[in-house]
Amino acid sequence: MSDNSFGRLFRVTTWGESHGPAIGCVVDGCPPRLKLSEEDIQPWLDRRRPGQSRFTTQRREPDTVRILSGVFEGMTTGTPISLMIENTDQRSKDYGDIARRYRPGHADIAYDMKYGHRDYRGGGRSSARETAMRVAAGAVARVVLRQLFGEELSIRAALVSIGDKSINRTHWDWSETERNPLWCPDPAIVEEWQSLLDGVRKAGSSIGAVVEVVAENVPAGLGAPLYGKLDGDLASALMGINGVKGVEIGDGFAVSRLRGEENADPIRPGPVFEANHAGGILGGISTGQPVVARFAIKPTSSILTPVPSITSAGDAVDVMTKGRHDPCIGIRAVPVAEAMMACVLADHALRHRGQCG
Amino acid sequence: MSDNSFGRLFRVTTWGESHGPAIGCVVDGCPPRLKLSEEDIQPWLDRRRPGQSRFTTQRREPDTVRILSGVFEGMTTGTPISLMIENTDQRSKDYGDIARRYRPGHADIAYDMKYGHRDYRGGGRSSARETAMRVAAGAVARVVLRQLFGEELSIRAALVSIGDKSINRTHWDWSETERNPLWCPDPAIVEEWQSLLDGVRKAGSSIGAVVEVVAENVPAGLGAPLYGKLDGDLASALMGINGVKGVEIGDGFAVSRLRGEENADPIRPGPVFEANHAGGILGGISTGQPVVARFAIKPTSSILTPVPSITSAGDAVDVMTKGRHDPCIGIRAVPVAEAMMACVLADHALRHRGQCG
Amino acid sequence: MSDNSFGRLFRVTTWGESHGPAIGCVVDGCPPRLKLSEEDIQPWLDRRRPGQSRFTTQRREPDTVRILSGVFEGMTTGTPISLMIENTDQRSKDYGDIARRYRPGHADIAYDMKYGHRDYRGGGRSSARETAMRVAAGAVARVVLRQLFGEELSIRAALVSIGDKSINRTHWDWSETERNPLWCPDPAIVEEWQSLLDGVRKAGSSIGAVVEVVAENVPAGLGAPLYGKLDGDLASALMGINGVKGVEIGDGFAVSRLRGEENADPIRPGPVFEANHAGGILGGISTGQPVVARFAIKPTSSILTPVPSITSAGDAVDVMTKGRHDPCIGIRAVPVAEAMMACVLADHALRHRGQCG
Amino acid sequence: MSDNSFGRLFRVTTWGESHGPAIGCVVDGCPPRLKLSEEDIQPWLDRRRPGQSRFTTQRREPDTVRILSGVFEGMTTGTPISLMIENTDQRSKDYGDIARRYRPGHADIAYDMKYGHRDYRGGGRSSARETAMRVAAGAVARVVLRQLFGEELSIRAALVSIGDKSINRTHWDWSETERNPLWCPDPAIVEEWQSLLDGVRKAGSSIGAVVEVVAENVPAGLGAPLYGKLDGDLASALMGINGVKGVEIGDGFAVSRLRGEENADPIRPGPVFEANHAGGILGGISTGQPVVARFAIKPTSSILTPVPSITSAGDAVDVMTKGRHDPCIGIRAVPVAEAMMACVLADHALRHRGQCG
Repeated sequence: MSDNSFGRLFRVTTWGESHGPAIGCVVDGCPPRLKLSEEDIQPWLDRRRPGQSRFTTQRREPDTVRILSGVFEGMTTGTPISLMIENTDQRSKDYGDIARRYRPGHADIAYDMKYGHRDYRGGGRSSARETAMRVAAGAVARVVLRQLFGEELSIRAALVSIGDKSINRTHWDWSETERNPLWCPDPAIVEEWQSLLDGVRKAGSSIGAVVEVVAENVPAGLGAPLYGKLDGDLASALMGINGVKGVEIGDGFAVSRLRGEENADPIRPGPVFEANHAGGILGGISTGQPVVARFAIKPTSSILTPVPSITSAGDAVDVMTKGRHDPCIGIRAVPVAEAMMACVLADHALRHRGQCG
Repeated sequence: MSDNSFGRLFRVTTWGESHGPAIGCVVDGCPPRLKLSEEDIQPWLDRRRPGQSRFTTQRREPDTVRILSGVFEGMTTGTPISLMIENTDQRSKDYGDIARRYRPGHADIAYDMKYGHRDYRGGGRSSARETAMRVAAGAVARVVLRQLFGEELSIRAALVSIGDKSINRTHWDWSETERNPLWCPDPAIVEEWQSLLDGVRKAGSSIGAVVEVVAENVPAGLGAPLYGKLDGDLASALMGINGVKGVEIGDGFAVSRLRGEENADPIRPGPVFEANHAGGILGGISTGQPVVARFAIKPTSSILTPVPSITSAGDAVDVMTKGRHDPCIGIRAVPVAEAMMACVLADHALRHRGQCG
Repeated sequence: MSDNSFGRLFRVTTWGESHGPAIGCVVDGCPPRLKLSEEDIQPWLDRRRPGQSRFTTQRREPDTVRILSGVFEGMTTGTPISLMIENTDQRSKDYGDIARRYRPGHADIAYDMKYGHRDYRGGGRSSARETAMRVAAGAVARVVLRQLFGEELSIRAALVSIGDKSINRTHWDWSETERNPLWCPDPAIVEEWQSLLDGVRKAGSSIGAVVEVVAENVPAGLGAPLYGKLDGDLASALMGINGVKGVEIGDGFAVSRLRGEENADPIRPGPVFEANHAGGILGGISTGQPVVARFAIKPTSSILTPVPSITSAGDAVDVMTKGRHDPCIGIRAVPVAEAMMACVLADHALRHRGQCG
Repeated sequence: MSDNSFGRLFRVTTWGESHGPAIGCVVDGCPPRLKLSEEDIQPWLDRRRPGQSRFTTQRREPDTVRILSGVFEGMTTGTPISLMIENTDQRSKDYGDIARRYRPGHADIAYDMKYGHRDYRGGGRSSARETAMRVAAGAVARVVLRQLFGEELSIRAALVSIGDKSINRTHWDWSETERNPLWCPDPAIVEEWQSLLDGVRKAGSSIGAVVEVVAENVPAGLGAPLYGKLDGDLASALMGINGVKGVEIGDGFAVSRLRGEENADPIRPGPVFEANHAGGILGGISTGQPVVARFAIKPTSSILTPVPSITSAGDAVDVMTKGRHDPCIGIRAVPVAEAMMACVLADHALRHRGQCG
């Protein structure tokens, strides 16, 4: 396991910096003879692409993905699939300020503390731009899952709260998430959220959010004790998304306030589970119920308000982040959440097939 | 990475079932020439041992650890350290009921769905008994950390809420956690918690909790982008503890409700961080601030109230769990949380030394 | 991948030193629902056990293996299988000499150079005693292979040369290998080898050998490009056996002297291969032909002739090795070779099933 | 560990097919703050490039490498280094024949048996073209080794036999290897080899060879018991080079014919080793002596003589390989051998630093 790879049998290695010539990934272990072309990947990238509404960063790039290997005559060969996106919107600009000042709450200072040298242009390796490759890899994972489990398996994510404004879960409508620019499943709150975000954006501020990702019709048996748990791998995958500070499965933190009777998931012959407090995972293994995960994403620290910081020389300085940025990075994390879920499930599906046939 | 191993350079593989002859682990990659004996490990196991108060399961075993390899003349040799605890309290009893009935909310049904065969005695591999080996491995990790970073590095955990009763954080006193059987850092709430738990226990019920684990004086630079993040590995390690349904770092889910200005961690020359919303980790890399993680643990599903379930043949049946059990498994998770933090930090410390010298 | 583990899906981690309390291994990833008991493992250990003829070390131990986990009611559960053998023949003796003198050609000095501390008793971790656990793990691998591919798949090894005395391959008779204490497949040379070894033994000398291991009825398709090649993994597994200095596949080094026409393996419809210069592997992937590997094992450096060496303090000293030892360690490597082949094939079989179904 | 990656801390993942748009690799784990640019890599690729003499394939490509990530302002950042070479010489041609006929001795049939689909153009993934990326990664490894151990550490390879014509080792002159197109260290045999190869080439035949690779001034202590052995990793790395059928360390197969006294490596204070039968490795760990490995490479099966084979439909057919090819692929393996040695040593150097400081 290297630092820039994840997955065991369906294994993704990403590379690239925000303002380098390109970003890319290598997907190793994809089964052979799957129909795959750029058209299977590009739509997912288009969904993620920033700049599609006033609520996401105005960086405008086509994010055109190319398959450089592992596919022949429209089908996967079982060899590594190399995907690449060229960076086209690298505005020529003076990065001198960012180079010498640590943005508080960013990875800047941590990278320098660790490596003593970093690509500061646009956040370099720590930029959310890298998540484009997660989405690309997730598109390949979806192809794997479809071949293994059919069309019924679905993976969808939504934004369920922004700041302290949460959706009303009884309104949940998945099709609504595709109709508004906020991936909001509750039509009744969309307008309120948009006003809120407009205010945040105009104030040069930012705001936190919660994303929920749900996989339905996942077969039972994916996952493993005790350090190959499906929930453990999901936790790691989702916590690794930029800005995420908390992850929960099923009812998550709420179960800490419950009694055993309240949290029970009775089983009826079938098996049919009456409730799904557990989020589809018991003992680290999927049960056939929907796999439900949720994560909290912080308000980006790129704000127009000056915050005390230091220069790389250690001197005090106030830092504020000008230029394009997202008022709520939770929005862009929605397609990434789906992609990570897809990659984790594809990996566990192959691992399960390997061990258990 | 196999399913029963974790860590990369400091790598732990555990084995064993609740009612088999023994449980154990192999710690591979421990640096050589560290003073290590059973006395460095046993006290941590003693802290974890159940049956020390009326609030934890009455299974009574000495849990005596033996070092079977990797140590010579009192010092580690750099070769694998094999640790073993014999199971002595395997009450001879008829497991017929558990064998054929799935306890709702337990791993029983998931293991059978995956493997088609499971050791049902006391939960087998999914039993919390396995966490004894995490504690043992954690004790070795502490020895590694002490040698690398000295006595200043501390790792401590506490219970911060039971049900909806949370501590008052202004009362926080680490020494208090060693004085009450609930690892509670707030002396003012201990009695209330004990009454609550007595009620839960007498009702044959169970209750959820939240555990917080804090590592202080962790050097900056541990962790790595982007799939070797310190927080990603902590999330996986903590989510893998039995019954955990949510993990958060620093302010965690609370940040989803904040604005960027509220969540800012200003940096002063030093560097000194004014706040620690980030929980000591930026971009997946430690900053030198305290590393703070928290997790929610569910009320155990082993309760005296009958819950609808099915038999392994698929027939309806009501299941209730008799016999010894814990009213709040969060209590026993406290030493385990410390151990997982120690293992993750030791692993990242060696990885950092490997790459960055 | 840790230093004391091998395999990816069928993963073996060994631990233990020659004169510690026990040696053992953990087999993780074994498929569930396989019939497995100590009786499936013990016979393979008995075959390997030293002291069965005057040609192997006189260390006499029953080498009784215990299964400590992963098997329930006679069947594997899919969870880690812990195997242990207690060391019973740890003659109380003064190791002072070995402790302070480096035996030339042994791992003694290398371990000290690396770790600065080693268990010198009987070679500690570098002792061939560890290979007992390879044989035990290999027995489990055989159970896996039998379930996957049936009884037809066979794995057998033989000694094909001792010193400059090679067998006549036209005499090859596999059943003969079980009838003489040298695993020799050529009845016509057994007596000559025995005389040779008697001479070597009486002279307090040692002699090198070549071992050949053959797996028949291995299905096509195991292995993978380019760093997961079946031959690459076999090379690593066999080179890792104590004393091995060379590994070859199929015709091996001999092909370096051939023309393309001489080395051709024509294919007939079936496919039927007319020859097997390639040793059953093309492009790192099995073809269905017998998988053939061979390795050279050095004369052990434990001889009665004094050889110049140094003490751990760096002073000159002559070292000769008294006490029990093997005149030809190639003999004892034969069952180990079979075991490593079994483990590598089982691992690749599961990996292939994972990726390709 | 995925199938197209190698190394643990210095980890290389390669991708790409012979006639796809590009080939590339990702080097993850490279230490930060090393001076690195394309100029550090290109010369090594130029040495390997085919078509430089009449003895290697006439495929002519500039093989211009680009660094796409992981380097900023001329220095490594510690993040993944993505290297890419575009394929420019993909002659438009009809691959119909190769597509439907299995070349005997090639990976063609094995890939189809495994994956049921392969990129047949120029061998696809199994083409020796992939080794360009090993050479590129090896160039980065050399930069790592130079920083860790200085200029003294050298890694050089040579061709030591072609067919049954071996060099006279007493003539060995490293500088000679750079003066003839055959990497031959013995000036007295170069002409004879050239005549031999001219004959082979004109006959449309091919011939085997042996390559030796030597690393000098490698520090003691690299490697690890028992499945992380330096020789085990070298064996795997070298066996994985296209066409390699045997690997040996130090005196290799020759030791199988020796007595213990003949194979002894006496140690003098220093330590100074009088001989180096062991090839610089004891117990899997380097001793400070030169690390010496050798491998046998087969005559390529791409010859003009028709050999019986089958079509992908299973029908009998005679196959002969027209077009550019190498009479002795051992020549081109020489720079690859150096690169693999460099990668293995760099990886073990970082692993050693991680565990032992």
